[in-house]
Amino acid sequence: MKLVFDAPGLMTYLDEVFPQIIGEFAVDALHPGALTMRLKVGERHLRPGGTVSGPSMFALADVAVYALVLAHCGAEALAVTTNASLDFMRKPENGRDLLAEARLLKLGRRLAVGDVLLFSEGMTEPVARATLTYAIPPKSSDL
Amino acid sequence: MKLVFDAPGLMTYLDEVFPQIIGEFAVDALHPGALTMRLKVGERHLRPGGTVSGPSMFALADVAVYALVLAHCGAEALAVTTNASLDFMRKPENGRDLLAEARLLKLGRRLAVGDVLLFSEGMTEPVARATLTYAIPPKSSDL
Amino acid sequence: MKLVFDAPGLMTYLDEVFPQIIGEFAVDALHPGALTMRLKVGERHLRPGGTVSGPSMFALADVAVYALVLAHCGAEALAVTTNASLDFMRKPENGRDLLAEARLLKLGRRLAVGDVLLFSEGMTEPVARATLTYAIPPKSSDL
Amino acid sequence: MKLVFDAPGLMTYLDEVFPQIIGEFAVDALHPGALTMRLKVGERHLRPGGTVSGPSMFALADVAVYALVLAHCGAEALAVTTNASLDFMRKPENGRDLLAEARLLKLGRRLAVGDVLLFSEGMTEPVARATLTYAIPPKSSDL
Repeated sequence: MKLVFDAPGLMTYLDEVFPQIIGEFAVDALHPGALTMRLKVGERHLRPGGTVSGPSMFALADVAVYALVLAHCGAEALAVTTNASLDFMRKPENGRDLLAEARLLKLGRRLAVGDVLLFSEGMTEPVARATLTYAIPPKSSDL
Repeated sequence: MKLVFDAPGLMTYLDEVFPQIIGEFAVDALHPGALTMRLKVGERHLRPGGTVSGPSMFALADVAVYALVLAHCGAEALAVTTNASLDFMRKPENGRDLLAEARLLKLGRRLAVGDVLLFSEGMTEPVARATLTYAIPPKSSDL
Repeated sequence: MKLVFDAPGLMTYLDEVFPQIIGEFAVDALHPGALTMRLKVGERHLRPGGTVSGPSMFALADVAVYALVLAHCGAEALAVTTNASLDFMRKPENGRDLLAEARLLKLGRRLAVGDVLLFSEGMTEPVARATLTYAIPPKSSDL
Repeated sequence: MKLVFDAPGLMTYLDEVFPQIIGEFAVDALHPGALTMRLKVGERHLRPGGTVSGPSMFALADVAVYALVLAHCGAEALAVTTNASLDFMRKPENGRDLLAEARLLKLGRRLAVGDVLLFSEGMTEPVARATLTYAIPPKSSDL
């Protein structure tokens, strides 16, 4: 697997195409087949009691694997999420960012699959896991 | 299956315990074993191009099935989402609310399972489906 | 959705292409978008205590939705299972066949999605639910 | 995480409680939190063309994570599969055993979660991934 973005280039591109989420996420690390994405946890991500909400965890998992696919396929790919499965296993720790450790399991011509573990920063046991599948539209050169 | 809330009572309770989401959701219908939840689609739910975001669809599916479990178990239940699987099948229509048609498949002493179809209002083909599982904590009388 | 097989034609075709499973399954009903598949429960499907095994339930769910896709796409389709999610909710009843009530949620050019409830014959509460996704290879005329 | 079985003891126990599957599976390795299970691929596991069937891959994933939970909880646990999600990513290689690399992600009092990658022996890219959840019945001492 070969990268077509580096971490700063990937982050710049994500900010361009998803201006709604500027400032929420950061690419902490990017390697062939693997990426660490940070959710900068703020008020809007919390539920009563101070825990990170389910939709925020979904968003982090989806952004992490999407960005990982993008980093290998390039900006023209426009992958679309088709399936997600998530297991919520522990309560996130109050006052800590969430980190997503994503790995690419398949990068086919039509489907990409990645999975991800979510951790409260500094903790060793995952709060959640997720697997996401993306459909990759045919390139015009394939038509 | 017997309801312990009616639709307005359920909505009032949800607004109390999840003040963050006041005004985003509405219970359109509630029957034993089934509920229709509306996402009042606004700017914050959209992605570029005007389509509803994945996290917003996740949130709607989760709130719908959570509310349905609550409507049968009562406010003391404090169910926790343990698993979610989602299939994103079509693009939501721009400018329409999303409706979640949820049904309760299992209401056990320890686990509840429900599934849900999401529709752009007025359309007949679902944009997404989801299944959610909740762990129901033991009542103190069980300890 | 338009059918290209009727129930006996579909069963005959399945027996031809999957000779390993002849006699295990039967199509009880077939309509546009919906199918009922029967698992004729025998010794080889059982676990200790007489309950139907998980792999047998997986097989029934997969065959049901696969057959439903086939009934709409035709024999040349050769769909491949790419994703399955299952919830096991109740113990199947001893000594009863299992029935799968499948419905087609999406039949796209590249992906098909269906879900299914499994019942012990004669019971009203499902023992399991499943959702399956199939990749549909491009037709040679698309290349 | 502490083991209460070693690999041969675990295999002996599985053969006792699941006599139907004697000879099909072998524990290749067992460590705290991780296990490798082998499916000894034979005729009964194959589909036309010589590929391992979906139900056989489901069975391997389920047995691997179930055995891993058992190795930590002990024989009295009687865990029950409640949820499974699987992604089928590549065709298994003809004529090779399948290996399941399972890891335990959560071992709670009531729920255990593990995930697993399946490989054709000797290959580096996984043919499938799966996550399984088990409900662990209350011990009589908890009642």
